[in-house]
Amino acid sequence: MYLIGIDLGGTEIKGGLFKEDGEVLAKQRIKTPVSEGFEGVCQAIYRLVQLLVNAGGIEEKNIKAVGVGIPGVCDGEGMVYSAVNLYWTNVPFGKRLRAITGLEIFVENDATMGAIGESAVGSMKGVKNSVLITLGTGVGGGIIIDHLPYSGSHGLGSELGHMIVGENYYDCNCGSNGCLETFASATALVNYTKKLLQEGQHESILCTKCQEDLDKLEAKDVFDAAKEGDQLAQKAVQRLVKYLAIGVANINNILDPDVIALGGGLSKAGDYLLNLLNNEVEKYIFFKSEKMKCRLAIAELMNDAGIIGAAMLAEKRIQISS
Amino acid sequence: MYLIGIDLGGTEIKGGLFKEDGEVLAKQRIKTPVSEGFEGVCQAIYRLVQLLVNAGGIEEKNIKAVGVGIPGVCDGEGMVYSAVNLYWTNVPFGKRLRAITGLEIFVENDATMGAIGESAVGSMKGVKNSVLITLGTGVGGGIIIDHLPYSGSHGLGSELGHMIVGENYYDCNCGSNGCLETFASATALVNYTKKLLQEGQHESILCTKCQEDLDKLEAKDVFDAAKEGDQLAQKAVQRLVKYLAIGVANINNILDPDVIALGGGLSKAGDYLLNLLNNEVEKYIFFKSEKMKCRLAIAELMNDAGIIGAAMLAEKRIQISS
Repeated sequence: MYLIGIDLGGTEIKGGLFKEDGEVLAKQRIKTPVSEGFEGVCQAIYRLVQLLVNAGGIEEKNIKAVGVGIPGVCDGEGMVYSAVNLYWTNVPFGKRLRAITGLEIFVENDATMGAIGESAVGSMKGVKNSVLITLGTGVGGGIIIDHLPYSGSHGLGSELGHMIVGENYYDCNCGSNGCLETFASATALVNYTKKLLQEGQHESILCTKCQEDLDKLEAKDVFDAAKEGDQLAQKAVQRLVKYLAIGVANINNILDPDVIALGGGLSKAGDYLLNLLNNEVEKYIFFKSEKMKCRLAIAELMNDAGIIGAAMLAEKRIQISS
Repeated sequence: MYLIGIDLGGTEIKGGLFKEDGEVLAKQRIKTPVSEGFEGVCQAIYRLVQLLVNAGGIEEKNIKAVGVGIPGVCDGEGMVYSAVNLYWTNVPFGKRLRAITGLEIFVENDATMGAIGESAVGSMKGVKNSVLITLGTGVGGGIIIDHLPYSGSHGLGSELGHMIVGENYYDCNCGSNGCLETFASATALVNYTKKLLQEGQHESILCTKCQEDLDKLEAKDVFDAAKEGDQLAQKAVQRLVKYLAIGVANINNILDPDVIALGGGLSKAGDYLLNLLNNEVEKYIFFKSEKMKCRLAIAELMNDAGIIGAAMLAEKRIQISS
């Protein structure tokens, strides 16, 4: 029997076919047909399942279960309350996918799926309690408590990006001010760097790079410039690190996990980011003890965390339900 | 067989003798002999146990287990890493109490004990996931996940008072700036009110009350004046409510519990505080849905939450260990 893990994003849908022991047999990705609406996306997911079945040379009836990570908020039945990038509100996603595919379907938030993957075979492996913070276009989170994913009483938990950690010069998309996402996402880093460039108070190698088009600036450019000693870029990175450290310390002071891992695009900054963060977090954690400290880590599975975690969730849930 | 619940505070030690079904048979309290050090406090706890045994008219050999809530950080064995008000660092509290009393001893943070009590028979009864925030001299917290107390991987979790929620004009005792405790404790409310009175920009009925001695000002005075429409007092309360709301919303966005309850001295402000808080929290929670909202409540057990929770923890732990 086989497992399928799907990571449904606003741009593309990634899928993996796995043996029950976690070995990957095939990976496929397709564009997300957002404009075709809820039904179109559900049909696309079924096409992706068929692509994986063909690529793996297996029969569809040998699929044990499918896990799907969604960029939004859902309950245990796969009812999606909100997925902003897909323009979905209150859609019976799990139920519809079950009807179209005839397969066992398990749905969870995508960052939670990432956390399940990291917890099983990545940076959070072997520990009881851990948290994944995904630093991408937005900031997401997945919480593992006692080796199991934790999503709260209504499936609304682990929205770490909307933890308020200070006051910011612009409001978050969610309507609040000061959300971690507005300080520590790739978008936030780029926005703040542009602001500094436009204010023109600092010289920067990014001025030359971006003199044609400031819109081409990416988070990676800012990190690269900071590593090279560019003061404007360092100022922007330091600001991100300060508020990310407050977020990390808050998670530590509330949940005291064994590991907090950083995933998403910004985590590619690797040890450079990790070292800055470790120094800054030290200032904000309540109980300072080397021996009992939560370990900070960079997520290991990168783009595959979502599909691996989704397949593993499917495996666990089918075990529980059978 | 009987259970004993002890609430060890910096000023007094409270104790209760309970039947296994939770019925209280006797309550006693004694002063905490802080100046007599670790050994003196341990001996005092044994005297309190004996007082309870006598008051209940039972025999000591019929005590099944004793739970002790401590104002600090400890591990599952009762090793107390830090209890600031008792001047304790790294003391083998559980081990020493076991040796002195010959009884089964289970130790936990006092706010966690309060949460266990509220979860079993109070404001958080019957729900799966809940959080108690104690608003007293400091701000503490207790987390219940899946009906069980959650203290993290090293016993350092649920330090909700040290969640950073903004920037403040003074630093927290822990060394950080912006801790919830520096905005939302009774101490914080009194400090900020004094600051406003000293700045003298607002008239206030508190000026008359305190003209002899500003040090007599208590949190209750500020709430009473605010309820009467006093603008300075209302300004102070509003500030407390703003940051408490950020703390509550952060807990909600991370843990999505069924209930968040407010305990400690400030919770005596009751519905007045609850109504202000409900309105303010609304601004900061990520996913706004009446149907799936976490309920805010005032803790019900007040001063007895600690001893009830301690007795219940002892009962649960003895069940698990036997």
